[in-house]
Amino acid sequence: MPEPTVRWVGGLQGRMELIDQTLLPTEHTVITCRTVEEVWEAIKVLRVRGAPAIGVAAAMGVVVGVQGAPDDEAAVLEAVTETCEYLATSRPTAVNLFWALDRMRRVANAHRGAGGPAVKEALLAEAKAIRDEDAAMCRAIGDAGRHLVTEGCGVLTHCNAGSLATAEYGTALAPLYRAHEAGRSFRVYADETRPLLQGARLTTWELMQAGVDVTLICDNMAGVLMRQGMVDLVLVGADRIAANGDTANKIGTYSVAVLAKHHGVPFYVAAPSSTFDLALDSGDGIPIEERGAEEVTHGFGRQTAPDDAKTYCPAFDVTPAELIEGIVTERGIVSPVTAAGLSAALGEGRG
Amino acid sequence: MPEPTVRWVGGLQGRMELIDQTLLPTEHTVITCRTVEEVWEAIKVLRVRGAPAIGVAAAMGVVVGVQGAPDDEAAVLEAVTETCEYLATSRPTAVNLFWALDRMRRVANAHRGAGGPAVKEALLAEAKAIRDEDAAMCRAIGDAGRHLVTEGCGVLTHCNAGSLATAEYGTALAPLYRAHEAGRSFRVYADETRPLLQGARLTTWELMQAGVDVTLICDNMAGVLMRQGMVDLVLVGADRIAANGDTANKIGTYSVAVLAKHHGVPFYVAAPSSTFDLALDSGDGIPIEERGAEEVTHGFGRQTAPDDAKTYCPAFDVTPAELIEGIVTERGIVSPVTAAGLSAALGEGRG
Repeated sequence: MPEPTVRWVGGLQGRMELIDQTLLPTEHTVITCRTVEEVWEAIKVLRVRGAPAIGVAAAMGVVVGVQGAPDDEAAVLEAVTETCEYLATSRPTAVNLFWALDRMRRVANAHRGAGGPAVKEALLAEAKAIRDEDAAMCRAIGDAGRHLVTEGCGVLTHCNAGSLATAEYGTALAPLYRAHEAGRSFRVYADETRPLLQGARLTTWELMQAGVDVTLICDNMAGVLMRQGMVDLVLVGADRIAANGDTANKIGTYSVAVLAKHHGVPFYVAAPSSTFDLALDSGDGIPIEERGAEEVTHGFGRQTAPDDAKTYCPAFDVTPAELIEGIVTERGIVSPVTAAGLSAALGEGRG
Repeated sequence: MPEPTVRWVGGLQGRMELIDQTLLPTEHTVITCRTVEEVWEAIKVLRVRGAPAIGVAAAMGVVVGVQGAPDDEAAVLEAVTETCEYLATSRPTAVNLFWALDRMRRVANAHRGAGGPAVKEALLAEAKAIRDEDAAMCRAIGDAGRHLVTEGCGVLTHCNAGSLATAEYGTALAPLYRAHEAGRSFRVYADETRPLLQGARLTTWELMQAGVDVTLICDNMAGVLMRQGMVDLVLVGADRIAANGDTANKIGTYSVAVLAKHHGVPFYVAAPSSTFDLALDSGDGIPIEERGAEEVTHGFGRQTAPDDAKTYCPAFDVTPAELIEGIVTERGIVSPVTAAGLSAALGEGRG
């Protein structure tokens, strides 16, 4: 099993550790976040990234936030509120961030009256539960999707929706890990995923660590690979999915989906049910975060564009449901992707 | 008009100057090649690149090669032979290099008996003719295509087929420069063009120098731009075009063409008629050069993929004619793109 990207070591006075993903693939460094500011910064600058891992990190961040509070219950509850409000500003488009913070807030409130120490213990237990539930979810997605990864097939993935993005096997990569563990042979093509190169730095790294046959390509090579018949399946993750199945994911995902449609290659999204935002009828309501020009102009350690070059750098794009063959969740695969189908699949057991 | 990337200043004892493209986009330095060795090195290490610009540089390099020769005719002819043989080793895969050197050799031989000084003058005139013919070709492509660049439109381009690659306006960028000179307002989106980032380093730079409104994007952002209705036209260059219109161009061009088709955006290729290889029935016959892994794994300045990562790195791809709305040559626009249409357009006045 891959090394956890975020973990809690010890008890209430223990520490939160994470693999600093900004240093991969050349340096494998585990850092400790001793303050809420360090947790905020780690989420902000993508030392930890991937929706589920951000949720786990944020939950553990709330525990960090109450470690220093006195045992007085009011002080603990105030620390929870302050920490949650602060961490919510680290990555305003990450729905899992808010989901995890809400859970932590609810647990704190539910223990109101039990005393400060009991609230703290409940928060730690909840953070660990969020992590454990995510690990179970990864495994369930992997098991639901692994039959898609047939013997000898070629699978293209974009960005990193792997163990480095979650508590365990990942989402998009979970079916690959589970198929690999079952002894199946297949090829993976990893889009390098400009501008931040999560595919080159993270996906390629973690698949190589696991012994999966992976070939790194530039994003603009996906089309010619498909034309040559090298790709039988596309599997990507998701940051947010609307009620109709429209899926926001790392910039470039939409282009891959269009290319897959053109070449008749099935395009699947793999994501936990927590990624769905059923309050959104369609992807039109998903705000697209724009990021700084430097990610494009200074992406590789040196300046590769002129001074003051104008850039457009959306962090995400939205792939419409009609380009998606199926969505793999921990509850199975929804295909075709329709609002009714998703509602039926997600409604069962929800809440 | 953009600053010439290669130029001859003065008469026979004048000098050859070029923009050192290896220093772009952060340093704008014009270097003088005073010896044939310096010309050789400039071509070798890509201080000058782009098929037409290499041809011009090589021709001017032959003039540099005879500048120091005595006026004795035999000595001049010997200097021509030696210089051509030497320069031919600088970039053995550049077809235009050999084409230009052949022209220079032929001119020298045609003036045999006229005396050393006359041969030298003929060589200078031929080098200038090669430059002028390319400049006229650029201008003709620009004039044939500029009506495509309508007021207020958005144009996407890939790689660099601009003034830095030719004697004057470029090929794909020529219609843009001509429309800009005519006072038209429009937006250009430049794909950065992984792995070597010609779009970021060169296209963005030269369009900014010329005052054209250009926005740099990562290759994987083209799809979402099109979906948002920001792109009304795609204009790209070509390395080689088969008789049926199938077009080999920088890797990533094919993906852009598929995206354009999906979004109903017209996709045009601009290239001189010398780019056509009518001996090839279709693009299936065009061999795809693969390049080293380092271009993907060690982009610019630092390692961005794990040690020993496997890569696939084709240098170019082939866009089938059915995805191409039209091909702009110095003789006009061929649209729709069919073997018969191309044959008719190219046949006239050919040879």
